[in-house]
Amino acid sequence: MARRFDTVSFLSDLGRIDETVGVVAAVIRDLAPHAGVVHLTHDVPAYDVRAGSLALARAIGHVPSGVVMAAVDAGPSCGRPFVAIEVADAAGVLIGPDNGLLAPAVAMAGGAERAVLLDDPAYQLASPGAVSFVRDLLAPVAAHLCNGVDLAQLGTMVDADQLLPGVVPLPRPVEGGDQPGVVCEVLWVDRFGNAQLNIGPDDVQPWATTLGARLQVVTTDATRTAERVQHAGFLGAGSLGLVLDAHGMMALVLDRRSAAEELQVAAGDQVTLTALPGVAGTTTSVSLGPTR
Amino acid sequence: MARRFDTVSFLSDLGRIDETVGVVAAVIRDLAPHAGVVHLTHDVPAYDVRAGSLALARAIGHVPSGVVMAAVDAGPSCGRPFVAIEVADAAGVLIGPDNGLLAPAVAMAGGAERAVLLDDPAYQLASPGAVSFVRDLLAPVAAHLCNGVDLAQLGTMVDADQLLPGVVPLPRPVEGGDQPGVVCEVLWVDRFGNAQLNIGPDDVQPWATTLGARLQVVTTDATRTAERVQHAGFLGAGSLGLVLDAHGMMALVLDRRSAAEELQVAAGDQVTLTALPGVAGTTTSVSLGPTR
Amino acid sequence: MARRFDTVSFLSDLGRIDETVGVVAAVIRDLAPHAGVVHLTHDVPAYDVRAGSLALARAIGHVPSGVVMAAVDAGPSCGRPFVAIEVADAAGVLIGPDNGLLAPAVAMAGGAERAVLLDDPAYQLASPGAVSFVRDLLAPVAAHLCNGVDLAQLGTMVDADQLLPGVVPLPRPVEGGDQPGVVCEVLWVDRFGNAQLNIGPDDVQPWATTLGARLQVVTTDATRTAERVQHAGFLGAGSLGLVLDAHGMMALVLDRRSAAEELQVAAGDQVTLTALPGVAGTTTSVSLGPTR
Repeated sequence: MARRFDTVSFLSDLGRIDETVGVVAAVIRDLAPHAGVVHLTHDVPAYDVRAGSLALARAIGHVPSGVVMAAVDAGPSCGRPFVAIEVADAAGVLIGPDNGLLAPAVAMAGGAERAVLLDDPAYQLASPGAVSFVRDLLAPVAAHLCNGVDLAQLGTMVDADQLLPGVVPLPRPVEGGDQPGVVCEVLWVDRFGNAQLNIGPDDVQPWATTLGARLQVVTTDATRTAERVQHAGFLGAGSLGLVLDAHGMMALVLDRRSAAEELQVAAGDQVTLTALPGVAGTTTSVSLGPTR
Repeated sequence: MARRFDTVSFLSDLGRIDETVGVVAAVIRDLAPHAGVVHLTHDVPAYDVRAGSLALARAIGHVPSGVVMAAVDAGPSCGRPFVAIEVADAAGVLIGPDNGLLAPAVAMAGGAERAVLLDDPAYQLASPGAVSFVRDLLAPVAAHLCNGVDLAQLGTMVDADQLLPGVVPLPRPVEGGDQPGVVCEVLWVDRFGNAQLNIGPDDVQPWATTLGARLQVVTTDATRTAERVQHAGFLGAGSLGLVLDAHGMMALVLDRRSAAEELQVAAGDQVTLTALPGVAGTTTSVSLGPTR
Repeated sequence: MARRFDTVSFLSDLGRIDETVGVVAAVIRDLAPHAGVVHLTHDVPAYDVRAGSLALARAIGHVPSGVVMAAVDAGPSCGRPFVAIEVADAAGVLIGPDNGLLAPAVAMAGGAERAVLLDDPAYQLASPGAVSFVRDLLAPVAAHLCNGVDLAQLGTMVDADQLLPGVVPLPRPVEGGDQPGVVCEVLWVDRFGNAQLNIGPDDVQPWATTLGARLQVVTTDATRTAERVQHAGFLGAGSLGLVLDAHGMMALVLDRRSAAEELQVAAGDQVTLTALPGVAGTTTSVSLGPTR
């Protein structure tokens, strides 16, 4: 049996305050000593499947070919089976609970090719008590995949269409307002307080596309003006900016300060962007004749 | 000299807020480039030998053969020498301070086979100031063991019986109460707030063994009723459960919430479990005769 | 092209609360699968170039030969280009922003031999939006260096004298006081609350060199007496000590408690050490004649 994969990219909500994540890495190393583990993050908020799925979607384009192991809300409470999903002409396999966690990353990787329920105990570890699904099920499966075991051996094949889809919030146009705009949601706040929104550059067409354009930002607590800039470093002290971030999404930023803190927003919060009154998005007639 | 081990599993109370742990990993990689480091955890509370020893005991059954390096309260203050202990037919060597940290893991690995005081400076690094015992002593010893140096070369052989034993708190039966019960202690609270107790399934015989059985939980602040369930996912919202956890120990849990927070308990706190009045553990005489 | 380096030692202010650091490690593994990443720390306070440069300087003597990748305040805001600097007879290359972050480590490694601006896009990744300098520029450059690409290929060679120097605070003698002393600064507080100062043993000559000597410690809030000891373990409970730490610097310590918390000091705070009145540093004339 040829070695198939060399890397397990691992994301979870297990934290690192205890040995849980380390034991999972130890199990993989014990069963597949040639494979390396890349720890994406383990600080996804506990049970927060949406946050985990977004982090995985941001990462998927950069992980090496191999196994991607994700575990958020990966206990019996989630009430969903565990699955392996093959993507990218079999260059990658994502494994985790079928609770929507993997779905956005699978989509970004081109969609599921094959999928299997991880229900064959032969590829799992025995537990002295309750099953730890990450340690006893996902970790050995990841190792076996690295060792060349085919997806089809791991359990019951399943139609990929039957997998739970992910929930990605969609923006919507402002309705009934005086100014064109878009109602968005904060997807992610990074360590520096940059607040990524669920919109791309096209969603702020045409009233906030041009660098230098100004627009209105309405949160639960405040109304602010933001400037469309290339990056936070071009902003004056305390000025709010709207940038195209390194993931191709629009984000609210401050220069060397936390925009999320300033705006009092967190992941999941609603933010509305609109054109400033009389400034953009309104085609004004221009008279070329002599003015009085 | 043959390469002997490929893995160093590393647990400490050094934290990751600065470069200390990274430098230790760098020293190992510098001296034994073929060896991989598995970081079990570095967030053992500072100086908390008991917490560290329990985390190591939970992990030891899953680490690959190789070196297990543990450092909790590993400074001159602890006043104990550093040791290496061979276990499992020489498949593993545990190194760390002889302050009880290694003892429970050594016992779980079948007991010490050989032990040595790490007192030969030839296998240690020079320091520009005080010795950093993890960086200058444990890390190079771990690397030398991976490189095939025999335990006996590292210093003065010592009788394993002379090593400091670990302190594992034992449960005791409730005395003088109306109901049978057990006085336990919280061993560990994981990220999700599950509170592992120092009892196995046998310690709650016979009054809380059956799934569905209910029992009384007494903490410093409150008295609650818990249900013996297979896992937290079977509990109703807000209901307290007692499960057999993935380490073979009994644990108090809530479904997707922190039982430790709800009960206001932390590692080391006492918890008493008893049968509910008139429910279990009381052998009632059963009359087979006709009832009136 | 021969493989040149096997290790990337990585330090940043990116935190580990999300997948950012993991993605950087994934990019390196994707481009240079043979290279291992040693995570020094990622919890340098955001934008704190000084703290990062000190951590890197403490680590540099222990990292394996290879690439050292550092990213603190590594965004467009810092307004500085990214550079690679060769040191130690080409045994090491440091890469990062030219904002002073690398300078102390470069000096400790013997000084820069060659330096290059990382301005050739051929060795960088494309971004779907703004450039993430760590993911899209530093990570691929680190991988290419590991793969044997020469420094000179990565961009425009630059005179190492043109690089921004680091800022290391210097101590100064107490002026005009009754007692000799030194005005220092806290460089670093480790997990255990030990407060490293910007002085070596020579800076407290001759009034606090001898073990057992006592001296005065003046902070913003308090004046305390400290004892010159070999390590904190020799102190009585609650006694403040001054030790030569494992980095060759003087540090204020307590036994198993946080000196920084006790003294209410943090990195960057000023601390003044002086001889105790009438105790040391004052050359008293000694009369050998008969006393009255």
